[in-house]
Amino acid sequence: MLVAQVVNTPSGTQLRPIDTLRETVRLAAGLTDNKLLGNDAYQRGLSAIRRFGERIRGFDPSKVRAVATNTLRVAKNAQNFVNDAQDALGFPIEVIAGVEEARLIYIGAAHEVSAVQGNRLVVDIGGGSTELIIGKGYEPKLMESLYIGCVSHSMRFFPRGNIDAHAFKEAELAARREIQVIAGNYLKSGWKQVIGSSGTARALADIIAENNFNGQGDGLTMGRVNTGSGLITREGLRAMKKHLLKYEHVNDIQLGGLKDERRGVWPGGLAIMLAVFDELGIESMEVTDAALRVGVLYDLLGRSQHHDMRYVTVEQFMQRYTVDRDQATRVGNLAAEFLDQLPKPDSESRAENIALLQWAANLHEIGLSISHNGYHKHSAYIAGNADMPGFSKNDQARLAALLIGHAGKLGKLATNAGFHDWRMLFCLRLAQVLCRGRSDANLPKVKVSEDDGSYLVSLSREWADAHPLTEFSLQKEAAEWERIGRTYQVGLK
Amino acid sequence: MLVAQVVNTPSGTQLRPIDTLRETVRLAAGLTDNKLLGNDAYQRGLSAIRRFGERIRGFDPSKVRAVATNTLRVAKNAQNFVNDAQDALGFPIEVIAGVEEARLIYIGAAHEVSAVQGNRLVVDIGGGSTELIIGKGYEPKLMESLYIGCVSHSMRFFPRGNIDAHAFKEAELAARREIQVIAGNYLKSGWKQVIGSSGTARALADIIAENNFNGQGDGLTMGRVNTGSGLITREGLRAMKKHLLKYEHVNDIQLGGLKDERRGVWPGGLAIMLAVFDELGIESMEVTDAALRVGVLYDLLGRSQHHDMRYVTVEQFMQRYTVDRDQATRVGNLAAEFLDQLPKPDSESRAENIALLQWAANLHEIGLSISHNGYHKHSAYIAGNADMPGFSKNDQARLAALLIGHAGKLGKLATNAGFHDWRMLFCLRLAQVLCRGRSDANLPKVKVSEDDGSYLVSLSREWADAHPLTEFSLQKEAAEWERIGRTYQVGLK
Repeated sequence: MLVAQVVNTPSGTQLRPIDTLRETVRLAAGLTDNKLLGNDAYQRGLSAIRRFGERIRGFDPSKVRAVATNTLRVAKNAQNFVNDAQDALGFPIEVIAGVEEARLIYIGAAHEVSAVQGNRLVVDIGGGSTELIIGKGYEPKLMESLYIGCVSHSMRFFPRGNIDAHAFKEAELAARREIQVIAGNYLKSGWKQVIGSSGTARALADIIAENNFNGQGDGLTMGRVNTGSGLITREGLRAMKKHLLKYEHVNDIQLGGLKDERRGVWPGGLAIMLAVFDELGIESMEVTDAALRVGVLYDLLGRSQHHDMRYVTVEQFMQRYTVDRDQATRVGNLAAEFLDQLPKPDSESRAENIALLQWAANLHEIGLSISHNGYHKHSAYIAGNADMPGFSKNDQARLAALLIGHAGKLGKLATNAGFHDWRMLFCLRLAQVLCRGRSDANLPKVKVSEDDGSYLVSLSREWADAHPLTEFSLQKEAAEWERIGRTYQVGLK
Repeated sequence: MLVAQVVNTPSGTQLRPIDTLRETVRLAAGLTDNKLLGNDAYQRGLSAIRRFGERIRGFDPSKVRAVATNTLRVAKNAQNFVNDAQDALGFPIEVIAGVEEARLIYIGAAHEVSAVQGNRLVVDIGGGSTELIIGKGYEPKLMESLYIGCVSHSMRFFPRGNIDAHAFKEAELAARREIQVIAGNYLKSGWKQVIGSSGTARALADIIAENNFNGQGDGLTMGRVNTGSGLITREGLRAMKKHLLKYEHVNDIQLGGLKDERRGVWPGGLAIMLAVFDELGIESMEVTDAALRVGVLYDLLGRSQHHDMRYVTVEQFMQRYTVDRDQATRVGNLAAEFLDQLPKPDSESRAENIALLQWAANLHEIGLSISHNGYHKHSAYIAGNADMPGFSKNDQARLAALLIGHAGKLGKLATNAGFHDWRMLFCLRLAQVLCRGRSDANLPKVKVSEDDGSYLVSLSREWADAHPLTEFSLQKEAAEWERIGRTYQVGLK
């Protein structure tokens, strides 16, 4: 956890870290073969989060952002854990996709390490995934997240801490195989600077420095990097590997700088780092900590300053899928207008929901790029599966549910216990029905209200009589809601 | 059924119809509420097809094309019926998507009706779907298929043949609601000529002519259209509706030109046609028969003359999804080279399969447009759901299966009883493994062979030793096939 203060400087707004809490939980090590988070890890995680929660109790919710990464992306009981963890923390927790993690890591690393001219490559080997990003300045350009991490790799190739040369070779090759897929594109793009972020890189750099594995004394190391950082070189990694293979078990290893908590995950992390160096032809790498945490905070700062990445993403998607903008805007504005007229529980962030509703409207027709038939399903498929920078997995799931529900039958959502955005869906569907003519010309004045889950849509009888097709569609819409047990009235006067 | 002769004329190759068989089966009327094709309709269909089969017995399979449309798109037991029907016909039958049907209808209509300058709108009201197409010359540009048809609409709004004014109004509004969705785009594009194709339009035109419902004598009708055609006007449709509403049951209707076989489906067809005229502001429409059948034959003729629409579609998809062309071509050529080396059963069209394999290679990375994670699933989703002009549903299903199987685990296909393209999948996966470096530089010379379902991949030991990563990947590939019970050996010498 990182607590930082917003500081306005002549060169822009910056974050000044004022507190850091760090606990080694190894959530990834708690994943069983059938992808369940085991009870020990579950409780370890909850306890740590509860302690973190104490530190930030009373913070303004708009100034806290908690993210969960790979283990909670893959664990089948992740939703349970997230629910419990949110209670323990006292704030919402977002599970973010690998590519979103990559984006935030880059933003963090870019703020931590002084910039060079040209592209920067950032490598972040986590417990269950490895992120590789190429960017320029503060802007990530290529972002990838691979399914290899120091914890999972160590468990797979060095089970119970056993080490041997064959297993190490297999571990390196398996990692190279994953990296190979992206190497072509990355090499084509090129870079001037390589940055390793997070605990694995830090631990490797510490061991290299402690044992002088770089073979060139500390002078070079200190001369090239920022204070508190380090350097990883290809020869340093090779020397480390040579040292490692003298032992048969991780518990036997004697090596300066190797912390006990890293002992079990070090061989896997080393194999992956070697594979990264080999596949991408890297000679040396600067190291920084806390890239993800710093990136999350800078991203949050951006949202408060109207640089919310999510707007940029939606804009890009509208272009990529050649959305009819007039129609998307028309539907979005009308839906937002309706939501404004409906009751708001205290716990709801209406501003956030209005934004989400308008994004759903902006994206509701992206599925037309695949096919007109069942386009709402295709829209939902894309929004549920695409890399959407700035959006959490939960944001994407909510968007996808609104998209699949915005047309056609409601039954599919009525049986989805995780769906709670009925009020927003009501607004989106009604806006869509009224805007089917794709013109601003024929829009009626419509009032909506909601009483105890019953909806009322009011418009003038005169207008309805002059527009029998829209009236017919409104009656069909009402019937569709009645079918799932909701009261929905169309009032004419 | 249409049998035609290919005739070379100074103005190009044409098809001269030499025989037509037509049977009114009303397959759509046999659909039960739970979307099963009932036994009566099933048998009626089979009998008709068996008779058709007799007429074309002994034809060269490359010169026969049989397509199935809406009812077999939606019936849950469609695959059973298609299997039986193929046996009865003696030739393969392709189920085509609505948009593909629209494309073929346009091509047929464009060949049947003399061209005008500017856009042409073609409207084809079938039993269970209605196709609306705008094109220019022989080129369709906008294609849509809506879920409304004369049979399904008549069953829904005029059950057991009962007619009343309220039901007719509902039928018109329900149809307008469907058409409204596409009307904006269509009106924006505009047209100079309107053509109604297939039985519904023909029947309406016949009744109008017979009863002089156009109110202007036959002179105009005969003056404007081709021989054997007719004209539908807005006033003609209104006069017909007025006449219809005098009756309470279809069996009571007395009307010149109304054939008994049309009696039950006429009200629904009329309501849809009125809705088309209203929503699109049409005043009059020329009529032609047999658009779909003519279009299917012209499309088949194109394939034999190297104007196969499927190549055009794949090319468009590669552009739309910004595919890495070098890699797609590399994988496709290598896969095709492998397939060439493997046994060919007599029943296999190797040329067709090589084409399909190369299309799969061309499209295997389209899913990257959604996300790198699980991109093979996204590729398969797009290929399985997109509108792909020229491809049948079965073509698309085969492509989608190859795409989902080309990377990752094989288990998902091993449990799919409908998947038979193992040999092609072997070639595609092997090519993909060998091309992972995305460069022509490092490709080894590889021989493949297959014996009784066991695969052997041979390459030089020297090359393998110099490329440990590829060798590692080949061993992983072999292990993946062994996991689903196949023998797969990598031989080095």
